[in-house]
Amino acid sequence: MHTPPMHTLTVALGARSYPIHIGRDILDRADLVIPYLRSPKTFVVTNDVVGPLYFERFAAALRRAGVEVAAVTLPDGEAHKDWQTLERIFDALLRQRCERSTPLIALGGGVVGDMSGFAAACYQRGMPFIQVPTTLLAQVDSSVGGKTAINHPLGKNMIGAFHQPRLVLADTAVLATLPARELSAGLAEVIKIGIIRDAEFFAWLEQHIDALRAQDPEALAFAIERSCRNKADIVAADETEQGVRALLNLGHTFGHAIETGLGYGQWLHGEAVAAGTAIAAELARRLGWLDAEDAARIERLLVRAGLPVFSPPLGEARYLALMAHDKKVAAGKLRFVLPRKIGEAVVTEEVAPSDAAAAIAARCR
Amino acid sequence: MHTPPMHTLTVALGARSYPIHIGRDILDRADLVIPYLRSPKTFVVTNDVVGPLYFERFAAALRRAGVEVAAVTLPDGEAHKDWQTLERIFDALLRQRCERSTPLIALGGGVVGDMSGFAAACYQRGMPFIQVPTTLLAQVDSSVGGKTAINHPLGKNMIGAFHQPRLVLADTAVLATLPARELSAGLAEVIKIGIIRDAEFFAWLEQHIDALRAQDPEALAFAIERSCRNKADIVAADETEQGVRALLNLGHTFGHAIETGLGYGQWLHGEAVAAGTAIAAELARRLGWLDAEDAARIERLLVRAGLPVFSPPLGEARYLALMAHDKKVAAGKLRFVLPRKIGEAVVTEEVAPSDAAAAIAARCR
Repeated sequence: MHTPPMHTLTVALGARSYPIHIGRDILDRADLVIPYLRSPKTFVVTNDVVGPLYFERFAAALRRAGVEVAAVTLPDGEAHKDWQTLERIFDALLRQRCERSTPLIALGGGVVGDMSGFAAACYQRGMPFIQVPTTLLAQVDSSVGGKTAINHPLGKNMIGAFHQPRLVLADTAVLATLPARELSAGLAEVIKIGIIRDAEFFAWLEQHIDALRAQDPEALAFAIERSCRNKADIVAADETEQGVRALLNLGHTFGHAIETGLGYGQWLHGEAVAAGTAIAAELARRLGWLDAEDAARIERLLVRAGLPVFSPPLGEARYLALMAHDKKVAAGKLRFVLPRKIGEAVVTEEVAPSDAAAAIAARCR
Repeated sequence: MHTPPMHTLTVALGARSYPIHIGRDILDRADLVIPYLRSPKTFVVTNDVVGPLYFERFAAALRRAGVEVAAVTLPDGEAHKDWQTLERIFDALLRQRCERSTPLIALGGGVVGDMSGFAAACYQRGMPFIQVPTTLLAQVDSSVGGKTAINHPLGKNMIGAFHQPRLVLADTAVLATLPARELSAGLAEVIKIGIIRDAEFFAWLEQHIDALRAQDPEALAFAIERSCRNKADIVAADETEQGVRALLNLGHTFGHAIETGLGYGQWLHGEAVAAGTAIAAELARRLGWLDAEDAARIERLLVRAGLPVFSPPLGEARYLALMAHDKKVAAGKLRFVLPRKIGEAVVTEEVAPSDAAAAIAARCR
């Protein structure tokens, strides 16, 4: 059998370390999954967009290897990342007699991964979990690091768990079917990585953003691997976000407010992160923490990636109220992630709400 | 200030070790809680039976110490250990602006503790948790060890997490208001401890069962401390039930089938455990693993504790079907905890379903 080239990274978490395999056409590499099965059975969670495209191919490879594949198909989209949909996963797990040693496999984007990862964390107090991300956003960000959650009407990702996967299998070939809007959304998290800790990568992105949007395979493979490598380092250093991991939330405090405020699913998560990153850059520039040239580079790259850099006009007071529910709030104080320059960011509580409101106002239209 | 006598045990889990304080009138010892607060705020979960009796006293002590006390009151009973009630906790946490560092305090019995512990495990991916158990069952068993869960219509405690408390505060004086039926239910877990690993304690229980039912303070204090000490040792040895901790499930596989089969809340958990323990003893005796005299001692002690030793006649097939959803099922095989003698039990997969069915049939009426 011809084995296409594949790169493997490791998230170093001691006994819970796990590999991230990145490569073209590795979706049906059942041999990569088999070592993680204690009995020849798996349970796959997918959605009604990804399922018709890739489920049969993925399942057929496992079945050829003698593995039983139980499954559930969820409705697509952030609007369904809730209790009701989670219950559908639990019902299916119980009705299909999955045991606590049966691995749950997420085949889909960030919503499928977050939600089914949370189901895996809770079903019988924890079952093994495998991520097979099929969107750029999931491949570069959400499938790595063990954050799982569902949304609450009052706050995004409010209910969840840290539950690391045993394995991440990122097939870059499946991105060929990804809509352009979803590809851009994934680029928001890629650009974020450059801003917070990898200036060289940011400069590379400035050179290759058009190639990425045109789905150049080599450019995509490089961007995915570089993003995952950065994220794996951060997660290994701070699994449960006591410190440095919070930097990954650049743009997310503002972004979550956009998603919650508009209603989940109106904007894609990556779009909200992009607009939130633009607010963070605006705020940092106004505070004199980021120079105007770096702020302009950030904005230009986001725009070239096809992403929004202005937020919906919900009103500054509403933004601040939504942000007060953020997980990073401590002792009633908002915490912001702000860029200091391309390649460096800080977490701070030293921002006056009036300054945040002014930056939001300047970045809404 | 007069400080009543108090005993303190430790659950040894490295950095997550925690104390269990046991004593009369320690409910308003706010000084025991204060060290666990990062900011002067707590969130208390109680129910509509315990709340009217003890919430104001508990909260007043904290408030006198300058601590803000947010709270939610749930409906009482196992029938409410579900998604809907869990959602009420999350709604209250968000509306009352609790942060991920705000400790959640469970003031109530096993249902309040299990459910609010699960809420604490999931809210913002994990907040600190404190148990203030007010029933005998919660004081001797469910408040110690970090198992949290809600029920699913198809299986008891199916959705949950391991989330250890930071502190357990067991005030034995509050048992004075506990109905006799609830006291008996708690004794089921006390007797279980004697059967699985403490023959001397079992013999002591045979001597003191009447004193315990009459709420003799010294007898209760001894039984609670001895039970907690045994449980703390087991949990320290096997936090996530990879091995020896499974012994604590004596009577629970059958018992969960009773609770799920009858509908949650028809029988108290401890009652179902007692009837399940009687089935386990019957099965062990039939297999020749337990001698008739020990089986008779177990049954006699359960009866004297005011507990049922016969199960409801759901039909053996229904019992086996319900048990097939048990968390201990592995590779399709049921696992049973069976006593070998007073003070010793084993976990086994070597039981034919027909033997289990015969024991169930002999113990239903």
